[in-house]
Amino acid sequence: MTITRSVETILSRYEGETPGVKANLARMLMQGRLGGTGRMIILPVDQGFEHGPARSFAVNPAAYDPHYHYRLAIDAGLSAYAAPLGPLEAGADTFAGQIPLILKVNSSNSLMPSASPKTQAITASVDDALRLGCAAIGFTIYPGSSMSLSMFEDIAEMRREAAAKGVATVIWSYPRGEDLDSKAETALDVTAYAAHIAALLGAHIIKVKLPSDHLGQAEAKKVYDKVGIPAASMADRVRHVVQACFNGRRIVVFSGGAAKGEDSVLEDARAIREGGGNGSIIGRNVFQRPREEAMALLDRLVDIYRN
Amino acid sequence: MTITRSVETILSRYEGETPGVKANLARMLMQGRLGGTGRMIILPVDQGFEHGPARSFAVNPAAYDPHYHYRLAIDAGLSAYAAPLGPLEAGADTFAGQIPLILKVNSSNSLMPSASPKTQAITASVDDALRLGCAAIGFTIYPGSSMSLSMFEDIAEMRREAAAKGVATVIWSYPRGEDLDSKAETALDVTAYAAHIAALLGAHIIKVKLPSDHLGQAEAKKVYDKVGIPAASMADRVRHVVQACFNGRRIVVFSGGAAKGEDSVLEDARAIREGGGNGSIIGRNVFQRPREEAMALLDRLVDIYRN
Amino acid sequence: MTITRSVETILSRYEGETPGVKANLARMLMQGRLGGTGRMIILPVDQGFEHGPARSFAVNPAAYDPHYHYRLAIDAGLSAYAAPLGPLEAGADTFAGQIPLILKVNSSNSLMPSASPKTQAITASVDDALRLGCAAIGFTIYPGSSMSLSMFEDIAEMRREAAAKGVATVIWSYPRGEDLDSKAETALDVTAYAAHIAALLGAHIIKVKLPSDHLGQAEAKKVYDKVGIPAASMADRVRHVVQACFNGRRIVVFSGGAAKGEDSVLEDARAIREGGGNGSIIGRNVFQRPREEAMALLDRLVDIYRN
Amino acid sequence: MTITRSVETILSRYEGETPGVKANLARMLMQGRLGGTGRMIILPVDQGFEHGPARSFAVNPAAYDPHYHYRLAIDAGLSAYAAPLGPLEAGADTFAGQIPLILKVNSSNSLMPSASPKTQAITASVDDALRLGCAAIGFTIYPGSSMSLSMFEDIAEMRREAAAKGVATVIWSYPRGEDLDSKAETALDVTAYAAHIAALLGAHIIKVKLPSDHLGQAEAKKVYDKVGIPAASMADRVRHVVQACFNGRRIVVFSGGAAKGEDSVLEDARAIREGGGNGSIIGRNVFQRPREEAMALLDRLVDIYRN
Amino acid sequence: MTITRSVETILSRYEGETPGVKANLARMLMQGRLGGTGRMIILPVDQGFEHGPARSFAVNPAAYDPHYHYRLAIDAGLSAYAAPLGPLEAGADTFAGQIPLILKVNSSNSLMPSASPKTQAITASVDDALRLGCAAIGFTIYPGSSMSLSMFEDIAEMRREAAAKGVATVIWSYPRGEDLDSKAETALDVTAYAAHIAALLGAHIIKVKLPSDHLGQAEAKKVYDKVGIPAASMADRVRHVVQACFNGRRIVVFSGGAAKGEDSVLEDARAIREGGGNGSIIGRNVFQRPREEAMALLDRLVDIYRN
Repeated sequence: MTITRSVETILSRYEGETPGVKANLARMLMQGRLGGTGRMIILPVDQGFEHGPARSFAVNPAAYDPHYHYRLAIDAGLSAYAAPLGPLEAGADTFAGQIPLILKVNSSNSLMPSASPKTQAITASVDDALRLGCAAIGFTIYPGSSMSLSMFEDIAEMRREAAAKGVATVIWSYPRGEDLDSKAETALDVTAYAAHIAALLGAHIIKVKLPSDHLGQAEAKKVYDKVGIPAASMADRVRHVVQACFNGRRIVVFSGGAAKGEDSVLEDARAIREGGGNGSIIGRNVFQRPREEAMALLDRLVDIYRN
Repeated sequence: MTITRSVETILSRYEGETPGVKANLARMLMQGRLGGTGRMIILPVDQGFEHGPARSFAVNPAAYDPHYHYRLAIDAGLSAYAAPLGPLEAGADTFAGQIPLILKVNSSNSLMPSASPKTQAITASVDDALRLGCAAIGFTIYPGSSMSLSMFEDIAEMRREAAAKGVATVIWSYPRGEDLDSKAETALDVTAYAAHIAALLGAHIIKVKLPSDHLGQAEAKKVYDKVGIPAASMADRVRHVVQACFNGRRIVVFSGGAAKGEDSVLEDARAIREGGGNGSIIGRNVFQRPREEAMALLDRLVDIYRN
Repeated sequence: MTITRSVETILSRYEGETPGVKANLARMLMQGRLGGTGRMIILPVDQGFEHGPARSFAVNPAAYDPHYHYRLAIDAGLSAYAAPLGPLEAGADTFAGQIPLILKVNSSNSLMPSASPKTQAITASVDDALRLGCAAIGFTIYPGSSMSLSMFEDIAEMRREAAAKGVATVIWSYPRGEDLDSKAETALDVTAYAAHIAALLGAHIIKVKLPSDHLGQAEAKKVYDKVGIPAASMADRVRHVVQACFNGRRIVVFSGGAAKGEDSVLEDARAIREGGGNGSIIGRNVFQRPREEAMALLDRLVDIYRN
Repeated sequence: MTITRSVETILSRYEGETPGVKANLARMLMQGRLGGTGRMIILPVDQGFEHGPARSFAVNPAAYDPHYHYRLAIDAGLSAYAAPLGPLEAGADTFAGQIPLILKVNSSNSLMPSASPKTQAITASVDDALRLGCAAIGFTIYPGSSMSLSMFEDIAEMRREAAAKGVATVIWSYPRGEDLDSKAETALDVTAYAAHIAALLGAHIIKVKLPSDHLGQAEAKKVYDKVGIPAASMADRVRHVVQACFNGRRIVVFSGGAAKGEDSVLEDARAIREGGGNGSIIGRNVFQRPREEAMALLDRLVDIYRN
Repeated sequence: MTITRSVETILSRYEGETPGVKANLARMLMQGRLGGTGRMIILPVDQGFEHGPARSFAVNPAAYDPHYHYRLAIDAGLSAYAAPLGPLEAGADTFAGQIPLILKVNSSNSLMPSASPKTQAITASVDDALRLGCAAIGFTIYPGSSMSLSMFEDIAEMRREAAAKGVATVIWSYPRGEDLDSKAETALDVTAYAAHIAALLGAHIIKVKLPSDHLGQAEAKKVYDKVGIPAASMADRVRHVVQACFNGRRIVVFSGGAAKGEDSVLEDARAIREGGGNGSIIGRNVFQRPREEAMALLDRLVDIYRN
């Protein structure tokens, strides 16, 4: 595998990182139809944990089978496939070596009492990732939650272990907490802050939601108003998030949320590309469509990023 | 021991699992009168912990003696016998090698203050299981409890250790929590979700209660209504739970609850068989009957599954 | 030391246990004037921790000195002497090898705020027991307390370590908790349940209080009423507790509580003997009497058990 | 160094203790002007932590310098000097070997919210004590606090490690808790109980405050009234505390509290000597006086104990 | 590198400390334009964590890039550069060996619910510091917080590990807590107490805010009033804080807080120098100015300290 210039540049920004981590970042960046472009599309399937099996898969029952997602990610030429322990194991042998894997090591669920503090359970380990041949671990933090400091401590420790063992770390950074209303959770300032925290914690790849043009924190609003940070277009907002990730020194990918129209998904991708984001992490919009439709949508996404 | 084709197929779905775990799954699947069929009947005796000795055994005083249950499970040709540390130890030497054992490693009890959060105490370890020659550990989770994340973390760690040491993991998944009323605890959507969580956590064998046709979560109900998941018959509901367990890639057994009429027990078994479940885990309906009656009932159960 | 037939039988019920543990059980069962009978009298002195020094020893000031208790247990030909770390250490050298020791590894005290949840502090370790040449560790659990699950987990771990190192485990099982009133704490059903939990946790020797004929739990009462468990005489109640300890497969000793008349102490012992209990664990009724009186009382107790 | 007969007797009561611990007890008992008498005066300087620097040292600014206290303890011929990590380190090299050191390993402070449960932070380790050449660690427990069980567990563990490494353990036992008013904190019964708990936990040297003639616990009061424990004079009360420390088998030293008149300090010492206590631990009454006055006061104290 | 006399004197006060720690203190004290003077200027950049990226860097967007700060600290000839894991890693290779680094190992953020107890997350380890070639770790404590004891325990442990591995420890000591209003947080008595606690915990370098002339604690006020501690000028107050740091045996640097006028910054530095403080730790006043202005300001600061 010859590394392209774009990928070389990206890798060079991970200064002092272990060759093992760099090799795994390279595996993801050189994989599939976006291989070598510096862009990525990742298929994440942890909604079964988060929302339950029927809400996730009943609309497309083939998706109950973990092999379905492996096969889809491989056939569509995606960069990586992310899932919790159980489903990764269920295809680990059949698809060994065919696509870089991201082991989602913590998970939430919708059965929890609504009054519980926002956090997730750690359900897999770095050694599980090694055993299953994964390129990275994935970990969700909830900046803003009363449990967030403990989540930061957990991922700081797991990241250290992972990096020492040559495994990369992807941080899902989702603001959620007692003082954040739902508008604030996707506000531009809060999203940029959440992405920055992931970078500070040493994430190799940062995943956030696409931000709205709302500003969630009064103290931040003052600065945004004064300095005049562009936020009108989605591309501008993506650019600001990229800036918050060490001025582009870290890979940032964006998720699109619940299933929605194809046009909307493609529009998001164009904004991500324009704003300098590294790509999409797209789950329900893929596996909740029939396979043919999903493949066609992914084709168009790839085209946008290859453009 | 020659493994049958059915068992081979089941084992092949545990991709990348250690040979030790597969060997222990094979031991249980090839044991007794259902050996080789891919079906199982497991005798669990942890009600002494959960409800106290008299409520469990006074109706059939011979059952106070741990040897009684070993002998019954062996004589009836069952697939495995599950119990906490104390009673397993009490017959470990006498019955060594005669039946696969499942060490129940956590337990609840009925003396706890009713206001306590729902959880269990971890009362045995993987090394205890090895020392006693067990094929598997058994662990209860309470999805929905405010303590559930911590239970998930505990079993994730124990499962990892167990698998590395060649011991299989059985997860008892019982929804129970502050936002779940008693109808919701056995609702179809909640049961399928609970089974799915056990699969996500890496359970090799999943144990849930037979679900009712109730739907417990509003968000899930929308999907069930829209997609039209069949739930009218118990066999349909079993089929849905099997689907939630990676589309049948994991063994699922069902428990029947408190002692009840023989007809009802047999009817349950027929529905499990028809719906594609792997069998029954049946305790009070066995040991709270006189031995002769219990043996006769188990005979009929075996016949149903061998059918 | 030749083991008697009775002791051999008892030891044989500890199936699969380490030879070290069996040897230490044998040391206690072969010690003193009840040596070889399968009965035991144990002197426990942890009341200084629980109630303070003056309430424990002022009535018999010689008892302030830890040597007093060593000497008494040896001279009276008892089976073992149990105490916390400090007092055991204070005579460890002088009396080395003269009597089997039980290191009480957790302790409560009467200075705690009354609103505190019921639990004890772990104040010694298995390695302390080894260092001091002890035959066993002693651990109190409070079934019914909101802290009980954590106590179960602690003793499960210590028991495992102790057994692996050849040290036996004695569990003091005292129901105490938010939903148990003081009558329930010594109720027959609750006492049998508490003894059963100790057995489930793997205790080699179980210590409970002598039960009253009260029934503390509504669900249990139904079963007792229906099945008709004999509870009128103390011997009947002892018999039921023995049944709850794996039908007599575990050693059970009974404590008598606060200092009281000699007749009452002897009557208790007769009931224990008749009901099939293994003996008495008797503290305040011994060391709060002048030494001469205490020796005389112990003489009579020994006679009852040798009978 | 030849050990005197008095010191030999004291050491012989630490049965089975490691030679390292005995050697360190001997170092303290043979040090300075009371060397060999079996009596001790210890200089403790942890008030900077507890009350802040100005409240501790501003009245005698030379005392801001940690060297001041080392020098004072050495020049006055005291038995040992006790302080937290920082100040011990600040003179560790200059004064190496000149006086036995006690590393205070936990500390409280006066900035804590007043509503916090009473406990201390563990701020140094046994290995710190070894590294700094200390003879002992010092640890405060608050019997009566809702945090006390956890403090007992911490010191039980540290004591075990310290003793195994040849370091002695001094326990500061200060009753303090939700159910104890300020009169109860120095009550005779409560002080004797606190001293007894330290002994039970395995303390080699016990430090308590001089008790008042108040009785703090109703249950204890009954016994004191009935048995008639002498409490009228301070010497009587000291004698009772000594009794509570295994009838004199453990070293007990007494602190005097806030700075006060010289007569009062000397009177306390006479009562300690008369009651059989082993000496004084005296801080603010020393370092909050000008050095000359402090040296003179210590001279007189030494004379009392040599008497 | 020849160590100057001033630096030698400072190092000699770290008695018994490991040569590795002394070497790292020397590296910082001999670095840059203040090298050898015993004074330091440290650039800390952890405001991205504490206040978010835009509030920290939007006013000077070049500062979004971690290289910016490395370059600035090097070009301005400062003593050290302090930052969390992510930004240190982002330049670790490019600037290896060019300036001593301080890895900030714990961090707070402004997304936390305002009702949360005041504490920080531990986001990096001593081994991270070693791996990145750092001279020291930096740790914030909040004396006065209900979480402060736990913070003290954490830094006590990390300091021990760091020192054993030759890494120095800088403690940021910021009073903050339920019983401290905002005036008390910078009060002279409280600041001196906070600095003293850092020294007691074994900090090699102590960082506090410049204190006001307010007194925050009633008990302390009595002593200040009685003894007459000079507090009218900032230099006096600095002198008192130095006194509280073992009478000058520990390095103390002062921070200036939010961005403000240049005159005010320089005036602070003069007071620090006059009062015997060791220098400034200055962040927002540097990186929130354009680079040219910042360089000019730092020039003047250096001149003051070289004076």
